[in-house]
Amino acid sequence: MKTDFFELKQSYHEIREKFNEYKECGLSLDMSRGKPNSEQLDISSFIINDLDKKDYMSKEGFDCRNYGAMDGILEAKELFAEILGTNAENIIIGGNSSLNLMYDMISDFVTHGSIPNKPWSKENKIKFLCPCPGYDRHFAITEYFGFENIAIPMQDDGPDLDIIEKIVSTDPQVKGIWCVPKYSNPTGAVYSDEKIKRLANLKPASADFRIFWDNAYVVHDLYEEIEILDIIEECKKAGNPDMAIEFASFSKITFGGSGISCIASSVTNINNFKKRIALQTVGYDKLNQLRHVKAFKDKNSITAHMKKHAEFLRPKIEIVLNKLEENFGGLNICDWTKPKGGYFVSFDSADGQAKKIIEYCKECGLVLTPAGSAYPKKIDEKDSNIRIAPSFPSLNELSLAMDIFCVCVKLVYLENLNNEK
Amino acid sequence: MKTDFFELKQSYHEIREKFNEYKECGLSLDMSRGKPNSEQLDISSFIINDLDKKDYMSKEGFDCRNYGAMDGILEAKELFAEILGTNAENIIIGGNSSLNLMYDMISDFVTHGSIPNKPWSKENKIKFLCPCPGYDRHFAITEYFGFENIAIPMQDDGPDLDIIEKIVSTDPQVKGIWCVPKYSNPTGAVYSDEKIKRLANLKPASADFRIFWDNAYVVHDLYEEIEILDIIEECKKAGNPDMAIEFASFSKITFGGSGISCIASSVTNINNFKKRIALQTVGYDKLNQLRHVKAFKDKNSITAHMKKHAEFLRPKIEIVLNKLEENFGGLNICDWTKPKGGYFVSFDSADGQAKKIIEYCKECGLVLTPAGSAYPKKIDEKDSNIRIAPSFPSLNELSLAMDIFCVCVKLVYLENLNNEK
Repeated sequence: MKTDFFELKQSYHEIREKFNEYKECGLSLDMSRGKPNSEQLDISSFIINDLDKKDYMSKEGFDCRNYGAMDGILEAKELFAEILGTNAENIIIGGNSSLNLMYDMISDFVTHGSIPNKPWSKENKIKFLCPCPGYDRHFAITEYFGFENIAIPMQDDGPDLDIIEKIVSTDPQVKGIWCVPKYSNPTGAVYSDEKIKRLANLKPASADFRIFWDNAYVVHDLYEEIEILDIIEECKKAGNPDMAIEFASFSKITFGGSGISCIASSVTNINNFKKRIALQTVGYDKLNQLRHVKAFKDKNSITAHMKKHAEFLRPKIEIVLNKLEENFGGLNICDWTKPKGGYFVSFDSADGQAKKIIEYCKECGLVLTPAGSAYPKKIDEKDSNIRIAPSFPSLNELSLAMDIFCVCVKLVYLENLNNEK
Repeated sequence: MKTDFFELKQSYHEIREKFNEYKECGLSLDMSRGKPNSEQLDISSFIINDLDKKDYMSKEGFDCRNYGAMDGILEAKELFAEILGTNAENIIIGGNSSLNLMYDMISDFVTHGSIPNKPWSKENKIKFLCPCPGYDRHFAITEYFGFENIAIPMQDDGPDLDIIEKIVSTDPQVKGIWCVPKYSNPTGAVYSDEKIKRLANLKPASADFRIFWDNAYVVHDLYEEIEILDIIEECKKAGNPDMAIEFASFSKITFGGSGISCIASSVTNINNFKKRIALQTVGYDKLNQLRHVKAFKDKNSITAHMKKHAEFLRPKIEIVLNKLEENFGGLNICDWTKPKGGYFVSFDSADGQAKKIIEYCKECGLVLTPAGSAYPKKIDEKDSNIRIAPSFPSLNELSLAMDIFCVCVKLVYLENLNNEK
C-alpha cells in the first residue's frame, strides 16, 4: 500500500471510500491508555496465589499480617534498590501506586515544603517544568495544585537542557521538573548520560527545586537491556544530594493496581518523608510486598519476567512502526518515534491535524488518547501529537486499527490540501 | 489482694518491695498499641491464599488485575454498605488504610476545600474538635496541618454535645470534629442515638464544617451486637446532607495493613472526592478487594468472623477489668471504663499521677501508650489518663502486666500521699 506523495494526492476518493467502509464496520476498540491485555496479564497471574497462608514472616522476623514496618520490609527495599541501582537505605516502599506517592509528595511540598518549614503554598507562584510530549497524569497533578506547567521540548535523548538550565538557574519560582528518564511516555526517549549529568548539576535559583524522576519503565526493555545513570548518585556527586526524588513500581511488571511501589532518594530526604508517612498510615500492604519478593528473588528473575512481557509488546510496537513506515515512509508528511521499550509510540501529524485525525478514528470506532493530552492544560499548540498505545488490542485488532489510523491521517492531510487550494 | 483504703495506706513498704521484685524480673512487654497477636491473626490467615490465580474477574466483568475501577469494585462497595447501613453509591473503596483516606481528605480540604474552591488554607485559623480522651493518630493529622485541636470532654454516650453545639454554632473557624462513634478509642464509649442526632442537627457557623466519622470498630462487638444510627442518613434528614464523612476498614477484621478501606458520604461528596482520587491514583488494589469479598459474602459472615476475634479479646478485656476491680473496686482512688467492644480500656488515676505510673511500669519492662497521647499536643492537663491496650500479650502475660500496673498505680498513689504529709 506504500504510496509516493503524488499517488497519495491522486487517491483522495479511494481513501474517502475506505474511510466510509471502516465507519460502517462498527469496530469498537479502545487504544487510549497503556494497558496490557488479558493474555499479557496471565504471565503474572501466578502471583495471585503465590503466598501460602503460613507465608507472613519477613526475613527480619516481622509478622507482615500485623501493623508496623511503615517504610516497608527490608527484602522489598533490597529488590527495588537492585532494580534502581541504589541502596536499601535510600528506599521507602509504598502501596500499589507510584502515582499516589508522587501526588502525596507534591501535596506535602505545597503544605509543608520540600525543605522542612518552607511550604510552597507560601510562594506567590510555583512553576513546574514539563518535558513535552509527556505524561498527562503528571501534568494533571501539578495543575491541580495551581502550578504553572511549563512545556519543555523533548528530544531523542531527553528534554532540552539548554532551556532547562537557563530557566532553573534564573527563576526561583521554578520548583521542579517531571521526568520519565527511560522510555519516556510517550516518545520512548531514553535520557543520555550527558543529560542526566546536566540535570544533576543544575544550579537552581530556588534551593528547594526538586527533580521528580518517575522511573516507570526501568526494566521495560523490548530489545537489549539498557541502563541509565543513577540520578541519586549523580546528584550527590554534583553537590545536590537532596534534589532528586525517584519513583518506581511493579504496575507494569505484575499488575496495574496490585503491585508495590517505592520512593528512592537521599537518606536525608527519606528520613523526612518517613515522618510525614508515619502520620498518613500505619504502614502499606506488607503481604503484597512479601508476595512480590517471593515471586522475584532478584533483578535477574525480574529481567526474565520482563522478557515475557516483551514477547507481547515488541510485535505490537513493530506492527505500529511497520504500518507507519509502509504508509508514510519517505513521504515527509508526518513523523513518529521508534521506541526500544515502554508502551507507546509518539506520532506527529502535519500541524493542525491531530484533533481531526483522532475524531475521524473515533468515527471508525477507534478511541485514541485525546488530542493535547501530552501537554500542559491539554493544549498541543501545534495540534500534531498523537499517542499510540498498542498494548491492549490483539495483533489482528491492532493491525486493523493501524490501517484505520493511517487512512484517517491521509484523509485529513488530503482534505487540508484540498482546502488550501 | 483486694484491699480497703486503710489497708492500702498501711502497705506502702510491701508494695515498694513488690515493685522492686517486678523490676528485677526483666520483663519485656509492649502494650502501647492496639495490635492483635499472632494467634488472633491466625483466624484470618485463610485470606492470604483465598484467591485462585483464575480469580480476577469482578461480578461486573472487570479484570481486577488491570488498571481502572478507580473507586472500587461493586461487590466491595456493597459489602461495606451493608456493614455501615448505607448504599453502594455512597461508597468509595480505598487502599489498605482508612487513616490514609482521612489524612488525604484533611490535606485536600486544606489545599482545595471541603466545598470546592474554598480551601481551608485561605483561612487565618482552623480549629478542630477532639473528643478526649481520643485517638492520637487523628489529632496528629490535624496538628500536622497547623489546626488548633480543641479538647472536648468525652462522656459515656459520646462527646459533650452542649459544648460542641455552642462552639460549632458560634465559631466559623471550627471546621470539623473527629469522632469514633462505636467503641471509641480509648474509652469504648458508644454514641447514643440522641447524641448522633444532635451532631447531625448541628447548625455550624461555617458552611464547610465536616464531621469525620471514623467507624473503626463498627462490627467489633465483644458481647451482643450493637447498632448505632447511620450518620449519613441522619445528616440528610437534618438538612446537612454533605456534613458527614465516614471511614471504615478491615484492618481489625482481617489484617492491620493488608485489609481494604472505604469512604462513605453523600453522593455529592462522593462525586467530588472521586475527582481528586482520579488524579491521585489509577485505582486501589482490586485483587485485595476481591480477596475480601470472596472471604466475606455478607455481613453475616463478617459477624461470624468477629465472634472469633471476640473469643480472643473478651477474656483480655475481662482480665483488665477484673484486676482493676480486685485492686481498686470501691477505693475511689482511680476510675476506668468498661467497654463492650473495641480494643481498649481507658484508665484514670488520681490527678498528676499518670506519667509517673507509666514511668514505673516501664522500669518493670511494661511499655504503655505514652502519657497524654489521647489529648491534643499530647498534653493531658490532669495527667490522669492511661490507655490500656490488652490485645497483644498472651493471657498469662497480661495477667502479670496488670499485676505490675496495679502495683505501680498504688505505689505512685502512696508516694503522693506521703509527700502530702
